[in-house]
Amino acid sequence: MTAARIGLIGTGYIGRAHAIALRSVGTVFPDVEPPVLELVADTDAARAETAARELGFRRSTGDWRTLVVDPEVDVVVVCTPNHLHRDMALAAIAAGKHVSCEKPLALSAADAREMARAADTAGLCHLVGFNYAVNPLLVTARELIASGEIGEPIGFHGRYLEDYLADPGLAFTWRCERALAGAGALADLGTHLVDLAHGLLGDIARVAARLTTVIGERREPVSGRARRVENEDCAQVLVEFANGVPGVVDVSRVATGYKCGLAFDLFGTRGSLRFDQERMNELQLYRNDDRAGLRGFRTILAGPEHGDYRPFCPAPGHGLGINDLKVIESRNLLAAIERRRGDVRAPGAAPDFHEGARVQRVIDAIERSHADSAWVEVPANGGVGR
Amino acid sequence: MTAARIGLIGTGYIGRAHAIALRSVGTVFPDVEPPVLELVADTDAARAETAARELGFRRSTGDWRTLVVDPEVDVVVVCTPNHLHRDMALAAIAAGKHVSCEKPLALSAADAREMARAADTAGLCHLVGFNYAVNPLLVTARELIASGEIGEPIGFHGRYLEDYLADPGLAFTWRCERALAGAGALADLGTHLVDLAHGLLGDIARVAARLTTVIGERREPVSGRARRVENEDCAQVLVEFANGVPGVVDVSRVATGYKCGLAFDLFGTRGSLRFDQERMNELQLYRNDDRAGLRGFRTILAGPEHGDYRPFCPAPGHGLGINDLKVIESRNLLAAIERRRGDVRAPGAAPDFHEGARVQRVIDAIERSHADSAWVEVPANGGVGR
Amino acid sequence: MTAARIGLIGTGYIGRAHAIALRSVGTVFPDVEPPVLELVADTDAARAETAARELGFRRSTGDWRTLVVDPEVDVVVVCTPNHLHRDMALAAIAAGKHVSCEKPLALSAADAREMARAADTAGLCHLVGFNYAVNPLLVTARELIASGEIGEPIGFHGRYLEDYLADPGLAFTWRCERALAGAGALADLGTHLVDLAHGLLGDIARVAARLTTVIGERREPVSGRARRVENEDCAQVLVEFANGVPGVVDVSRVATGYKCGLAFDLFGTRGSLRFDQERMNELQLYRNDDRAGLRGFRTILAGPEHGDYRPFCPAPGHGLGINDLKVIESRNLLAAIERRRGDVRAPGAAPDFHEGARVQRVIDAIERSHADSAWVEVPANGGVGR
Amino acid sequence: MTAARIGLIGTGYIGRAHAIALRSVGTVFPDVEPPVLELVADTDAARAETAARELGFRRSTGDWRTLVVDPEVDVVVVCTPNHLHRDMALAAIAAGKHVSCEKPLALSAADAREMARAADTAGLCHLVGFNYAVNPLLVTARELIASGEIGEPIGFHGRYLEDYLADPGLAFTWRCERALAGAGALADLGTHLVDLAHGLLGDIARVAARLTTVIGERREPVSGRARRVENEDCAQVLVEFANGVPGVVDVSRVATGYKCGLAFDLFGTRGSLRFDQERMNELQLYRNDDRAGLRGFRTILAGPEHGDYRPFCPAPGHGLGINDLKVIESRNLLAAIERRRGDVRAPGAAPDFHEGARVQRVIDAIERSHADSAWVEVPANGGVGR
Repeated sequence: MTAARIGLIGTGYIGRAHAIALRSVGTVFPDVEPPVLELVADTDAARAETAARELGFRRSTGDWRTLVVDPEVDVVVVCTPNHLHRDMALAAIAAGKHVSCEKPLALSAADAREMARAADTAGLCHLVGFNYAVNPLLVTARELIASGEIGEPIGFHGRYLEDYLADPGLAFTWRCERALAGAGALADLGTHLVDLAHGLLGDIARVAARLTTVIGERREPVSGRARRVENEDCAQVLVEFANGVPGVVDVSRVATGYKCGLAFDLFGTRGSLRFDQERMNELQLYRNDDRAGLRGFRTILAGPEHGDYRPFCPAPGHGLGINDLKVIESRNLLAAIERRRGDVRAPGAAPDFHEGARVQRVIDAIERSHADSAWVEVPANGGVGR
Repeated sequence: MTAARIGLIGTGYIGRAHAIALRSVGTVFPDVEPPVLELVADTDAARAETAARELGFRRSTGDWRTLVVDPEVDVVVVCTPNHLHRDMALAAIAAGKHVSCEKPLALSAADAREMARAADTAGLCHLVGFNYAVNPLLVTARELIASGEIGEPIGFHGRYLEDYLADPGLAFTWRCERALAGAGALADLGTHLVDLAHGLLGDIARVAARLTTVIGERREPVSGRARRVENEDCAQVLVEFANGVPGVVDVSRVATGYKCGLAFDLFGTRGSLRFDQERMNELQLYRNDDRAGLRGFRTILAGPEHGDYRPFCPAPGHGLGINDLKVIESRNLLAAIERRRGDVRAPGAAPDFHEGARVQRVIDAIERSHADSAWVEVPANGGVGR
Repeated sequence: MTAARIGLIGTGYIGRAHAIALRSVGTVFPDVEPPVLELVADTDAARAETAARELGFRRSTGDWRTLVVDPEVDVVVVCTPNHLHRDMALAAIAAGKHVSCEKPLALSAADAREMARAADTAGLCHLVGFNYAVNPLLVTARELIASGEIGEPIGFHGRYLEDYLADPGLAFTWRCERALAGAGALADLGTHLVDLAHGLLGDIARVAARLTTVIGERREPVSGRARRVENEDCAQVLVEFANGVPGVVDVSRVATGYKCGLAFDLFGTRGSLRFDQERMNELQLYRNDDRAGLRGFRTILAGPEHGDYRPFCPAPGHGLGINDLKVIESRNLLAAIERRRGDVRAPGAAPDFHEGARVQRVIDAIERSHADSAWVEVPANGGVGR
Repeated sequence: MTAARIGLIGTGYIGRAHAIALRSVGTVFPDVEPPVLELVADTDAARAETAARELGFRRSTGDWRTLVVDPEVDVVVVCTPNHLHRDMALAAIAAGKHVSCEKPLALSAADAREMARAADTAGLCHLVGFNYAVNPLLVTARELIASGEIGEPIGFHGRYLEDYLADPGLAFTWRCERALAGAGALADLGTHLVDLAHGLLGDIARVAARLTTVIGERREPVSGRARRVENEDCAQVLVEFANGVPGVVDVSRVATGYKCGLAFDLFGTRGSLRFDQERMNELQLYRNDDRAGLRGFRTILAGPEHGDYRPFCPAPGHGLGINDLKVIESRNLLAAIERRRGDVRAPGAAPDFHEGARVQRVIDAIERSHADSAWVEVPANGGVGR
């Protein structure tokens, strides 16, 4: 098998996380060939060079357009601010590269759909960085729902609460600017939560939302000038899944005290599930079939029976970390590429750009619902909204 | 001081809870005169007689209309199904009795307002059984918000989840019948949550809601005939407080695994609060003012520094129970009556019928929002909606 | 049935708790006749008179010796400092009164045995105030062990941690004085924990202990003079139960941050149990019989399936409080007295003075183990020491 | 800087964990040169070859004696059963290799001391795999203690509970055999806990212990013959630190339901700390200095303010995993080697073989205490016991 050669664009936090994962993926998962860290790009050539040395890439460049057409690169990993995802991914696809793109896939469902179609047409693998969903315990959660262990799902209560912008004194960043970030908390956090909800309960059909910009102005870092925050700090959303299940979704980047509060309660007719990323190694399960008087939410600690836990550690309860989720994501991408090499009709990676577009359709609908103060239907796969 | 003489209507669970509380209130709170348990009514005279013996009442009757006019009764406590609250309370008021009425105060805001006005006109004390809000830790929560300890409130996430009707095999009860219960989960659970939210953040100004009847039919207990459930099993609501704070409210009587999940997260610019009735002796507080690196939600155990805890136990962390909240409620009623005796302009009990009506206005708005699939304004104090 | 007439000695915290419980016991438990609160004694006649009024007793006295022989008193409840328990209980027994005595029953196993024998000889009911053990969830815990639900017990890890004397600035009290309190943390806290352990696993056969007085001196409240603390602040104990189960016991009155940390882990070959009084409405159960991958400690919320919960509330998860445990204790005492009236061979109350003596034998052995730096056998029922 | 060339002996669980860590350490910590995975040994040459391919080593061998003298190897990592640690480490040291050895360092304190002295004499770096102690939150815990944040330490309550041998049906393994494993739960688990305790409170001076073999016999895997288990399943220990702090230690490999229950409570005069490896991203802190009525254990989520968290993720609360601890351990080793290259008097790695020996002295004392049923002094650094 030939090792996939990686070209990484963006060397911030999430770029580093990918690099760390790509370095260890082959050791954790011997079934995939360890990739070659070939080329890294950043807007600043000097920073790219430093990153290459630190992250273990062979070469660096200050020009991402060079990277996406580099003949020694097989896979492009896009870890840049949101508004760049579309052009970078399309350029990489045009150059025949597989693409792994961070979330949100694009600033709109239309863009996301364009990206998915381009990649499909080119016969390439594509993946969106919804890493939380690969948590071994969430694989188990989806299996429990699918097998009817908790009966029919009848309610969903999801939230993704963080406080990274809770401090009004924090400077204006690209995340607050519509043209660069698209939505605010919805783009950063809501996309993860919607993807998680999709995996648990399928399509979201309708939404009614209220968005709020809590801190209306922030100061620009250099000039100190006050500048209007252009997207929402938090979003409260009523959702109705296509299967009729009602739900609530709550997303905030100003929820003081919450650091990674991606959490849900899922109620079924025979049981319920609870999860919170801040305790990512625990899944809570309640079963009506337990004996009366002995029922209760049980805390299942992640272990080798769950999803991809075992390759990390054969002992239960020892704990995975957030970076381990990126390792699983990397394995999924590399395995899909290897399959694709043998057979272009082989299944691609998951979650792919179609899921990225599906999530974006929900985000778009949420924003429109807020603008219209009305319930809004989420367009089906074929459409991308009005 | 003269002991207040109690007439209790309804001897089910909540009637018993009142009786237990009224028996011990004078010992826990020496500042109020122990009341006399004078007369108890139930629809069945024999059951009333048994109840009188078991609950310690002097006399019993099978006719509540006798009770409300009994000259030896000073206070009428209404613990009957929802649709009876209005007539019983109005009759008691007409007979010059103080009234404590279980929630929901009435089936509509209009009825509730009528009750409040009648009681005011008669110069009587009135109280609604929103017992959860007297929890000593929630007194502290309200003080912390008022004092600015968590900064400006910027978000609210409330839920009241129980599963008492989650089992589809459970029989049709009066709680499922519109004419007897009014709303479903909203009447049973939502009213408590709205009252709690009022206490924390003030008036709710607007709502957008979706109600769901998860289990559409239940069998009648005797005939076994299937019968349509006439009100909602769960309600998901977006709320906007009058002070601009956005929120989410989630209420369900079919949330498998939840037994008394009255809970909230309240985010402020400088801190946050969390509470869950299932752990009613714990309040969680996060403060930005704690030193960086040492911040975290702290679990405050109920103790003598909080609200009315001390008369129950001078030692912290030993734990109050749900019935103790009824004791505090009883004290509040009796103390208000004693004050009123000395001075008819003395403050009444809290939460009073006006709060009952205010809560009902929100419930009415939630139901209309669902019917109209639209945001609905909650009428101000003067009005009761269309 | 004739109502039992109560004489209460001591009007501090625990005396009040008894009074509150005795006031409501008949309403919560209709199967017992509500007792008459006849007479209350305190060392100071004026304080006794105030207490009578506040707690609802008919009469008061400044002389406990008057109380124990009062012809209108059937039951004497002893709520005084430890060193008085023996003389008061023996005097009450001599006068033919049933006795409920707070823990520790006496300052030594020898004294406790004398008290138990005197009460038995007189054919009277006797009870020790180990109220924690009547928690409905602990009744369930004992049933689970007895039924083999968690297999053979193989380990016990118990602790009772509080911090009521953690502050070195707190004044010297009678609790620090050997002649008045006997042991320190062991008397206050250890006795509860040993009683709990007895109920779960039976007799403790051997102990090895280390006692520590962390704060060696405290100031006397009036004089401000430094005075040596004469008993232990904490005790660490290895235990071996008669059935061979090994265990650890940890008791402290200076465990900063703990308010009522009476807790245990109990390991069995097929499951485990966990409990913590600070969350007294939760019992945690782990079962090996749960399906692989779905095992975990489940949190069982107290409800009507457990012990004496139902008379307090028919709904699960609504929560009992510490005072409710005293209500159950009072019911147990009154029911035993009623049974005894009909048949002097009827079973007495539980836990009785024999349990009080059994606990004291363990405490004595712990103290001796510390003194001798050696393992010490706990004498069997017949004996009271080496 | 020259990359360190690694020779790894043993390809089981913990060997793989080291390989995973060594692969990503240079990316996570750019301040160390990524090591070269040079040579891997296993008893079976074919398995070693497979491991080399899967774990990313250049070469393999079926003979560890070849590995330790290989000229292309700079560092030997020993991941074999306990009884082999001594000979392998001594051979590696004799060949001039730095050594990282898994715990327990040796089967006795005498052996461990010999290893430490040999490595020191040779001027080599040495490290023992006490990976739990490098948890960023435990770095913070030690800092809090050192800075007096919780006042004077006055009590310690440590436990390491797992259930990997709780099932009596599990076969006899080398872990049950004295000659191969040394102690049982004490070697596997107790060593970690003692190292943790050392870091928090310094030397342990005296112990009193009781060891129990709960499951006396297990069947051999092939023959099915019953065979006596030769070491303890659990150990209960009273400890006294050199600074006078009393404590309890509880270790078990048969604690049903516990998967990685390495936990402690540490009480101080002004605050307390709590930690549990099963929630390794949380540290609980109680401070007396918090305002009365607002005190409580706060849950600090791991974040960039703590120890070595930041290189893994700049965002708090996102979670590290057990393998990340091995990455930190690897960094510590490699950084020490790099320092040593520049200056042979530079500080070595921590925890080193001296700490391994210090832990083993405590384990030896615990075993002797059990044998003698007596308190036993832990010999000071110079000695290794009787």
